[in-house]
Amino acid sequence: MGTPPPIDSRAAAAELDRADPLAAFRDEFAITEDPLVYMDGNSLGRPPARVLEALAGVVGSGWGERLIRSWTEGWMDLPLLLGDRIGALLGAAAGQVAVADSTTVCFYKAVSAALDARPGRTEIVTDPGNFPTDRYVLESFVAQRGLTLRWLDPADPIRGPGPQEVAAVCGPATALVTFSHVDYRSAAILDMTAITRAAHDAGALTVWDLSHSVGAVPVALDGAGADLAVGCTYKYLCGGPGSPAFVYVRRSLADTLRQPVWGWLGRRDPFRMDPGYEATDGIRAFLSGTPPILALHAMEPGLELVERAGIERIRAKAVALTALAIVLADAWLTEHGVAVASPREEAIRGAHVALAHPDAAALCEALTARGVLTDYRAPDVIRVGLSPLSTRFVEVWDGLAALRDLLVERGG
Amino acid sequence: MGTPPPIDSRAAAAELDRADPLAAFRDEFAITEDPLVYMDGNSLGRPPARVLEALAGVVGSGWGERLIRSWTEGWMDLPLLLGDRIGALLGAAAGQVAVADSTTVCFYKAVSAALDARPGRTEIVTDPGNFPTDRYVLESFVAQRGLTLRWLDPADPIRGPGPQEVAAVCGPATALVTFSHVDYRSAAILDMTAITRAAHDAGALTVWDLSHSVGAVPVALDGAGADLAVGCTYKYLCGGPGSPAFVYVRRSLADTLRQPVWGWLGRRDPFRMDPGYEATDGIRAFLSGTPPILALHAMEPGLELVERAGIERIRAKAVALTALAIVLADAWLTEHGVAVASPREEAIRGAHVALAHPDAAALCEALTARGVLTDYRAPDVIRVGLSPLSTRFVEVWDGLAALRDLLVERGG
Repeated sequence: MGTPPPIDSRAAAAELDRADPLAAFRDEFAITEDPLVYMDGNSLGRPPARVLEALAGVVGSGWGERLIRSWTEGWMDLPLLLGDRIGALLGAAAGQVAVADSTTVCFYKAVSAALDARPGRTEIVTDPGNFPTDRYVLESFVAQRGLTLRWLDPADPIRGPGPQEVAAVCGPATALVTFSHVDYRSAAILDMTAITRAAHDAGALTVWDLSHSVGAVPVALDGAGADLAVGCTYKYLCGGPGSPAFVYVRRSLADTLRQPVWGWLGRRDPFRMDPGYEATDGIRAFLSGTPPILALHAMEPGLELVERAGIERIRAKAVALTALAIVLADAWLTEHGVAVASPREEAIRGAHVALAHPDAAALCEALTARGVLTDYRAPDVIRVGLSPLSTRFVEVWDGLAALRDLLVERGG
Repeated sequence: MGTPPPIDSRAAAAELDRADPLAAFRDEFAITEDPLVYMDGNSLGRPPARVLEALAGVVGSGWGERLIRSWTEGWMDLPLLLGDRIGALLGAAAGQVAVADSTTVCFYKAVSAALDARPGRTEIVTDPGNFPTDRYVLESFVAQRGLTLRWLDPADPIRGPGPQEVAAVCGPATALVTFSHVDYRSAAILDMTAITRAAHDAGALTVWDLSHSVGAVPVALDGAGADLAVGCTYKYLCGGPGSPAFVYVRRSLADTLRQPVWGWLGRRDPFRMDPGYEATDGIRAFLSGTPPILALHAMEPGLELVERAGIERIRAKAVALTALAIVLADAWLTEHGVAVASPREEAIRGAHVALAHPDAAALCEALTARGVLTDYRAPDVIRVGLSPLSTRFVEVWDGLAALRDLLVERGG
């Protein structure tokens, strides 16, 4: 698909939609007339049309009819089956991903396991722009264990931390290096392979947050030598508000790393309910409590859409959508004080675009009142999320035109 | 309702159903022809008929139409609104219960917070018959913090630990006393008030697991002076397989106790995403990640049924159902080697009955093959769960008759 040529009319944007090989996927979502424009699918993906059918199936048959028998008729394996499918989108061979808990809890478990595997080391490296819940979890470990957070303030805040910068702050005290693979504000894609190598060179482990990557950006966890990763399924995977998260643990580490929340579902032979916790083999040991079966079923239709579309085609459309947003921002918005705060280089740009403006909060609110949904991200970012399977090129046109009109009216 | 008179025919059991003031509630559940008899509603409650409607509402409107706007249109408060409603069933004034995570994760947070509040104390008291996931979580803290688990082996294994026994093992080293309020095998109801007092007398805190109490047995958390509690919503509350759990923290403790999984949803002003974790006020600080919105909506219909029936009427029917099960066990099963392993005293018996037999595992399997679902609980318990809103007296008759027939056929 590539970068679209500069377009100067809504009709030209509509032409991009007609040529879009993924255009038909929009019909797979339940889309209402309001909002007019949805540019926040990276906060909450739209509902796949098949979600209710999936829920009706599990409520009627799995829950209603089979009742507890369902636990041995598939439910126990669902967190790992869905995990394998998510793993396949992330370059992870089977048996390394489990779906469970919230992203925050998964991140807590991953960080705890990594820190335990590096006893005596006292430092955690991350960037101050990392997603808040990740930073807060890290702070909790600092408080619990008397560790030090080494905040890596990248030289280029839009591109985020580079491998050399990471290497420069890593040393024999570094236990853990953790970043978001795609930045939640700038959309910058970090160099997972090189940063992981820098961490490993110092003897540290890595935990990657893939919340803004999964289903939007190709990831090669196994290839990059990543140690652990977590991510969210309610953004590009369209799993629904607060849908369960996932955790990846590299196969060679899974039997030595130990997560802290020892629950019955991570124990060998859980239904024997034997005395004494013994972690079961592999990634299943990262489970704790009873799997959220309804939510796991609700997640399946969105995952299936991403699988069917294929991550490479999704990526190509994301590149084209974000390129169009940048073209329009340059043409319409920069004169009103808006700055593109995402990488212009498509290879390191995820599936959203950050538009910086001092009045971003008020602008987002005014856009919402006009049926154009974006996200405000403090201090000054209007985040334009362009979920490739449900967002049209004309939607980008209309959304940015609405912002332009707003700025013109404000006389900004 | 009281204890039913001895009955000697299925017609007499049917007469109890006709006289049952809660009989009509069975129509509020989606009930299929298979299984014939469901005596495991304390493992997984049946689906309320209104669940799919609730899910269709949130998927279509909240998720599909309002999209991210829903977060400020009610979703953020849902964990606390449902928490307040669950709290009302547990004798907890509003503002002390949050719905979140799995029971295991909630228990982990509660235990961590309690231990942190008793620095220098090194012992945790529980009983070896406590539910496995609780024991495993406690073991994880023992491993992390070098603590000691004091296993309280009750003199009477059916009645479980009494207040004097608890007092005898508590002392200046005791940080935490934690039990299940209703035992998952014997159904024994512990004396929450007296045990809490014994713990407090030693300066320890308590964490109660209410998984087998909530929606079945009256609980008076505030009245008992309980400190923390957790519980499960997929048993008597019929929230669905793996539905979210809840955590209670006594109001006077909520602002001083600190849970360990610092996530954005427990932070003051979460959407400001400011640097530095600051726990928000009250029970909301026990939240970590994004609330599981679909699962929270799926939980509402079951909760509403329990509220409408009223915990006192539910309790009365549970007493009558379990009394009938014991009458029938005495009449039919003891001669075949079955022993009633639940308290005969109704005041200290929850809503299920444990029937002990050396071949319990095989018997449960054979019952399942005949469409009679019970639970096997190692080493020797057939657990007969009698969820009051969806279980009929004739179902108890039929289920225990099936077990009798099986034992007769085996010549046991």
